[in-house]
Amino acid sequence: MNRLSINTATTKNITLAEAVRLYTDAGLSSIGLWRDRVAEAGLDKAARLVSEAGLSVSSLCRGGFLTAADEAGQQAALADNTQAIIEAATLGTRELILVVGGLPAASHVTGGSAVGPSAPGDKDVVAARSRVADRIAELVPVAQEYNVRLVLEPLHPMYAADRAVLSTLNQALDMASPFPAETVGVVVDTFHVWWDPSLEASIQRAGSERRIASYQVCDFNLPIAADPLLSRGFMGDGYVDFETITRWVAATGYAGPVEVEIFNQEIWNAPAADVVETVKKRYAELVLPHL
Amino acid sequence: MNRLSINTATTKNITLAEAVRLYTDAGLSSIGLWRDRVAEAGLDKAARLVSEAGLSVSSLCRGGFLTAADEAGQQAALADNTQAIIEAATLGTRELILVVGGLPAASHVTGGSAVGPSAPGDKDVVAARSRVADRIAELVPVAQEYNVRLVLEPLHPMYAADRAVLSTLNQALDMASPFPAETVGVVVDTFHVWWDPSLEASIQRAGSERRIASYQVCDFNLPIAADPLLSRGFMGDGYVDFETITRWVAATGYAGPVEVEIFNQEIWNAPAADVVETVKKRYAELVLPHL
Repeated sequence: MNRLSINTATTKNITLAEAVRLYTDAGLSSIGLWRDRVAEAGLDKAARLVSEAGLSVSSLCRGGFLTAADEAGQQAALADNTQAIIEAATLGTRELILVVGGLPAASHVTGGSAVGPSAPGDKDVVAARSRVADRIAELVPVAQEYNVRLVLEPLHPMYAADRAVLSTLNQALDMASPFPAETVGVVVDTFHVWWDPSLEASIQRAGSERRIASYQVCDFNLPIAADPLLSRGFMGDGYVDFETITRWVAATGYAGPVEVEIFNQEIWNAPAADVVETVKKRYAELVLPHL
Repeated sequence: MNRLSINTATTKNITLAEAVRLYTDAGLSSIGLWRDRVAEAGLDKAARLVSEAGLSVSSLCRGGFLTAADEAGQQAALADNTQAIIEAATLGTRELILVVGGLPAASHVTGGSAVGPSAPGDKDVVAARSRVADRIAELVPVAQEYNVRLVLEPLHPMYAADRAVLSTLNQALDMASPFPAETVGVVVDTFHVWWDPSLEASIQRAGSERRIASYQVCDFNLPIAADPLLSRGFMGDGYVDFETITRWVAATGYAGPVEVEIFNQEIWNAPAADVVETVKKRYAELVLPHL
């Protein structure tokens, strides 16, 4: 279990202190941190809790939301991400996961045909991607100052409108390419990328460019949950071919943590100790043999 | 309005005869046909209804579902698609849209963690894609015999598990490439492909390879509908940048029909005549100026 990490978002209903105790008792040596639990505990106390338990931090989730078209929105994003970089450094992880943000138009979702066409420009996904690249360029020196890596997360295209205009691993690598690999990386999250016909080639590229900062595993469940964010599942419950993708990742020489991050109402409702046991079992069965 | 076509699936609750009358009265010169309405009317009668009204048929939807791993499933798929080819030819359209099918594992969706891991192999998306290519190769001579084009439809990746292991336009073009452009084409459906970072280049490629068999327009709505198939909306109600994508398609020289195919419960519940009027209005406002 020395490469398995669990993100606190998987056991959303317990405190950071409880998660640290639970994961440690389960024999894990690392933990993924969501910023809500860190904020709740207080940054310095969170850092102490984790380090005193002897856990290393596989990643901090998350910064990002960099697509604002207006000056105020852009300044707010830079400030929030600077804060996230400082948090990552304080918590002792180099890996700050970034969800880059969706179309500005999607921030005021209305639904229904009565509303009619929105203002032009709001839906310009090409321009939104370009603004993400601009913000990353501005954040790179800050990340370097704190020795943190900005980790671009391609999200499943069903979130392209409202959460991430970055949809494929190859696109993330293109966006990372102007910057050093130790400062801008990518995460391979099976839920988001399993469907991609270019996945094998993109993983190879990510490996050869030394940009794989995190390998996150969870399943893609059907039917899609009423809140599509919660469609993630335990490995084995959905449609991801963990053997194949894990082999592709392992073939690059990636030797870092394998982090399990599941948003799923049923799993959040279950006792956290049971959730951790199931994660360990499924990891041992479906992922570990192929690492 | 001479390039606008409406698919009968958009006005799901009226008969083919009613749709033919309604679209003709609305000044359209072509119609997209869904096989359910054709079957209901009877193939020969459907062909007569359409041709006597002076409508041309922009496409027949749909064949496909070619991912079966077992011999019986593969034979059934070949038989159904041969029938669809004959229907297209009888109805006077060259364009038979194919939704290629998802993972075999997804045909028995269970959901819930109690079930545990499925049998290995079921989730092998690489193998499923390869079986699609094999079936296409078998169908090409049949399509040629009837002078019909097999039109590969990349579907939004949120349907990769259960409906189509073909998720991008570039992937569809790769799959089409062994075959003549007049026998295997692709459809550009804004709902399915708008998020794709390679879209401009893929549309250019599709044009230069002369494979664009259909341009379908409808919007990508949020929130995603409870049945994700029904998340399609009137142009302007969602997040698609019709100006940009339409310009990319027009730049290839594509001069064929622009078909509106919307699955949306609210739209199905509305009077069909109102739906046709809204389609015409939105088309005139958001698509036509950029064609």
